Amino acid sequence: MPSPLFSETPIWKKLAQQAQRFSLPKMHLKHLLRQERRLETFSLNGAGLFYDFSRQRIDGEALGHLIELAEARDLRAQFRAMMAGEKVNVTEGRAALHTACRSFSDAPVRADGKDVMPAIRDVREKIRAFAEKIRGGAITGSTGKPFRHIVVVGIGGSYLGAQFISEALCAFADRKLALHYLANVDIHNFGHVASRIDPETTLWVMISKSYTTAETLANTKQAYAFMEEKGLDPSKHVVTVTSEGSPGDDPSNPVIDAFHMFNFIGGRYSVTSAVGGVPLSLYLGYERFEELLRGAEEMDQHALTAPPEKNLPLMAALISVWNNNFLGYEAHAIIPYAEPLCKLAPHVQQLYMESCGKSVTKDGRPLDGKQTGVIIFGEPGTNAQHSFFQLAHQGRPFPIDFIGVIRPQYEQYRSESKGVTNHQELWANFLSQPMALAIGKDDENPAKVFSGNRPSSTILLEDLSPRNVGRLLAFYEHRTVFEAFIWDINPFDQFGVELGKVMASDIRSEMVAKNGDEKHSFQGMDKINEFYLEALFSGEKWQVMREG
Amino acid sequence: MPSPLFSETPIWKKLAQQAQRFSLPKMHLKHLLRQERRLETFSLNGAGLFYDFSRQRIDGEALGHLIELAEARDLRAQFRAMMAGEKVNVTEGRAALHTACRSFSDAPVRADGKDVMPAIRDVREKIRAFAEKIRGGAITGSTGKPFRHIVVVGIGGSYLGAQFISEALCAFADRKLALHYLANVDIHNFGHVASRIDPETTLWVMISKSYTTAETLANTKQAYAFMEEKGLDPSKHVVTVTSEGSPGDDPSNPVIDAFHMFNFIGGRYSVTSAVGGVPLSLYLGYERFEELLRGAEEMDQHALTAPPEKNLPLMAALISVWNNNFLGYEAHAIIPYAEPLCKLAPHVQQLYMESCGKSVTKDGRPLDGKQTGVIIFGEPGTNAQHSFFQLAHQGRPFPIDFIGVIRPQYEQYRSESKGVTNHQELWANFLSQPMALAIGKDDENPAKVFSGNRPSSTILLEDLSPRNVGRLLAFYEHRTVFEAFIWDINPFDQFGVELGKVMASDIRSEMVAKNGDEKHSFQGMDKINEFYLEALFSGEKWQVMREG
Repeated sequence: MPSPLFSETPIWKKLAQQAQRFSLPKMHLKHLLRQERRLETFSLNGAGLFYDFSRQRIDGEALGHLIELAEARDLRAQFRAMMAGEKVNVTEGRAALHTACRSFSDAPVRADGKDVMPAIRDVREKIRAFAEKIRGGAITGSTGKPFRHIVVVGIGGSYLGAQFISEALCAFADRKLALHYLANVDIHNFGHVASRIDPETTLWVMISKSYTTAETLANTKQAYAFMEEKGLDPSKHVVTVTSEGSPGDDPSNPVIDAFHMFNFIGGRYSVTSAVGGVPLSLYLGYERFEELLRGAEEMDQHALTAPPEKNLPLMAALISVWNNNFLGYEAHAIIPYAEPLCKLAPHVQQLYMESCGKSVTKDGRPLDGKQTGVIIFGEPGTNAQHSFFQLAHQGRPFPIDFIGVIRPQYEQYRSESKGVTNHQELWANFLSQPMALAIGKDDENPAKVFSGNRPSSTILLEDLSPRNVGRLLAFYEHRTVFEAFIWDINPFDQFGVELGKVMASDIRSEMVAKNGDEKHSFQGMDKINEFYLEALFSGEKWQVMREG
Repeated sequence: MPSPLFSETPIWKKLAQQAQRFSLPKMHLKHLLRQERRLETFSLNGAGLFYDFSRQRIDGEALGHLIELAEARDLRAQFRAMMAGEKVNVTEGRAALHTACRSFSDAPVRADGKDVMPAIRDVREKIRAFAEKIRGGAITGSTGKPFRHIVVVGIGGSYLGAQFISEALCAFADRKLALHYLANVDIHNFGHVASRIDPETTLWVMISKSYTTAETLANTKQAYAFMEEKGLDPSKHVVTVTSEGSPGDDPSNPVIDAFHMFNFIGGRYSVTSAVGGVPLSLYLGYERFEELLRGAEEMDQHALTAPPEKNLPLMAALISVWNNNFLGYEAHAIIPYAEPLCKLAPHVQQLYMESCGKSVTKDGRPLDGKQTGVIIFGEPGTNAQHSFFQLAHQGRPFPIDFIGVIRPQYEQYRSESKGVTNHQELWANFLSQPMALAIGKDDENPAKVFSGNRPSSTILLEDLSPRNVGRLLAFYEHRTVFEAFIWDINPFDQFGVELGKVMASDIRSEMVAKNGDEKHSFQGMDKINEFYLEALFSGEKWQVMREG
């Protein structure tokens, strides 16, 4: 029996009533923050992270109802089903077992009745051995030189997660190895990378689950042409990360090695699989990748076992839904006060917006798209303060996750300015911003009035070790699926990307025809695309349309 | 006499009525797009750019009212006043003369009665000569070696604009010179840059209008300590871009040279001043920087002289306000199908959100912050398709600017995949996405239904020459100020960043006290910040708070 639509449940009504209460002046955050033990009551500690939601627009009563929501929507049972290998990706008939990628327990995890752990352990072991050989110089390129450049060819889920982690941990990277990402099909992306590598010492890592992704295939072809032009043997310069039996796993097209990913791993949840494992182990060393997995595993276990009122990602999901569906905020910012986390927001943007940007429940009942996922964006602080925080303080409000790190990675630079170190200066800002947003300020000059009452959470990490970054990664993964579980949507499919692909295919056919016969006419297409295709093919002769 | 509040004008009422009409099924974009001459009617060409708003939710009647809005709010007169040097930044009593930075006319431009053009021409000439000497090796570091690294130290407006342009034009860069940005006060940012430069061949460009920006000062101190530790003479490795007479322009602190910026240039509008001019001329050569200025100047003249119905940035502002205030979209995405424009969205995010995130008119009457600027975000296509376009197609809708380039920068890579070049593949996507968003698709399977009616504009550039990038830069600057003029807000101040600074200063004082005396207690602060400061100072001993 399907769950009732969230908007038709008794708990929705209760929460909507609660939200009304929060429109009263006495519920302004500046008052709520005066409550005794505000921080202790509205913060959680678990799996090595500290999650403070004391500056969210919430009180004990509303929190009680949110916890009721967790029970009413059976969130932990849904999470348990996911981790147990049930086919929670119902529309595609698959499990969603990214948590198995970081399981170090002896317990089997079954998908379709078969324990997936042996295959996962094999891939991990294969990555370990391979990374050691590349990093140690035991495997070289076709001219015998050790590898010095890694180009990761992949897009979306085959790119953003690894990029987030490699930036977060770049202080640990092997400085002899440069890491480049080739995602966009824009030839500029290829040209830019090609002009910065030494072809003889370059290892290409081609990542595509199906090995049919148009962008990745196009870039792979460019790379092969480039290697051949340089007189190099691609079979000595390419590894693939792909599904067993895909065109990237075809012995007639030899490569150094092929690492398997599995149909129960979705792209945006794949960082802890071989998709992240191969590039990150090459760049950081396998041991650090394994530490990342162990951090993620801790968060998995926490999310699985902690009751709702103590469960960090579950609580973060409840707060997010509260802000979205009940307080009416349409966007959410992620502001790490830690430059190494500069690619966290783009990663979560994909993870969350692709998972939760849905207008249908998992069993096909229509929803209003304005009731599901919000827009995610963000930049590191303090940069963001000098960019869009004007709007955050005095314009259209949006909730924020502030993220701080107690100990920085570069402790050798300690000179002071204004009596504090750079790290302390960073923290002075990290602490002042959430408070300024919450409390606001009156002023006789209306231009200097801060209305306040702008909600945020604060997440604290002890340091940016691989383990803590793994915890943070899994925190956002689980926050995402818990929200989807509340709405009863499928966070693991992405049918919304299909229509554009179909239409692109029609346009590509026109291009192919034109490439084959320059007299080919675009008439018969819709008028707008006809105009643009003519512009593209006119090349140097193009003059923008005058008047019309 | 102040203008009436926009929401209280007759034209607001008319537009609100128009918007109601657009909720009818017959006004779905799939129907609007069947109109004869849809593209010709709803597109503009000017100053070298093509702006297509045919896939916005608009028809002739609504457009007529929008043009009426332009007249009702006297937008061109406000723009003329800005370019003429009037004190349009009323709250700070200053002109906003970024357009003068790219004027190559002989006409004087007066601020406070004085022609600013001679000083602007002097700075330009000084930049030209300086860049030539650095690039040619006539000026060297303190050990006599030519410069190979440039570190630009600046944040917000002293950073994002130059970063956007240097990425957009990096194909033209001098490959012997590496460009690094040091914005964030996070010591990681410094450590990361320091580990990638050769100190002897590094030129530091310190950019701060007041030379009191906390982050930039802190990073400058680190840089000086770093140079001294390496035995280098900072006076041979540093240039400043700052206001005349600021601490960065003090002869007792010698530098290679100091380049002036002026109080009539706001940070987020400063790319075409010395703020962008020094780093970009070093990296790209002065001639290319001047080409950029000339492109911007063309757009300035277009914005100044074209009537509303032919004026690209003005029309883009009208469409943006229509989407925001009348159709209810709270965010706006910028998706360039051009990897070199990867930093356009972060730049416009600052430019627009800091300019338009206001809740008070320029003469101090309160506004609802939900009536002014929206949230700006974006990533290049096709990357964005594999990231958040699921939500764009099937979740919460938001308007998009699609940007395309006819001729790519790297034309030597031409191998084909699926019968098309990479650039054609990029275009197949660039053309399909706006159409898929607009038209949508029905399906028996509700998970495969695309509701469509999702608005977008398309902006076309012939290529990514410095001139075209300058045009695009000025297009977004002017779109921003035109929107502010509609709301009667001041796009040139940013009082919303002040409260956080004041609070940070209080927290910094506590840190200074603790640095001086480790027995200093944080009691007496608010409980939340007390907790966090204790966590920070506990350093390695820190254990996250258990239970509370």
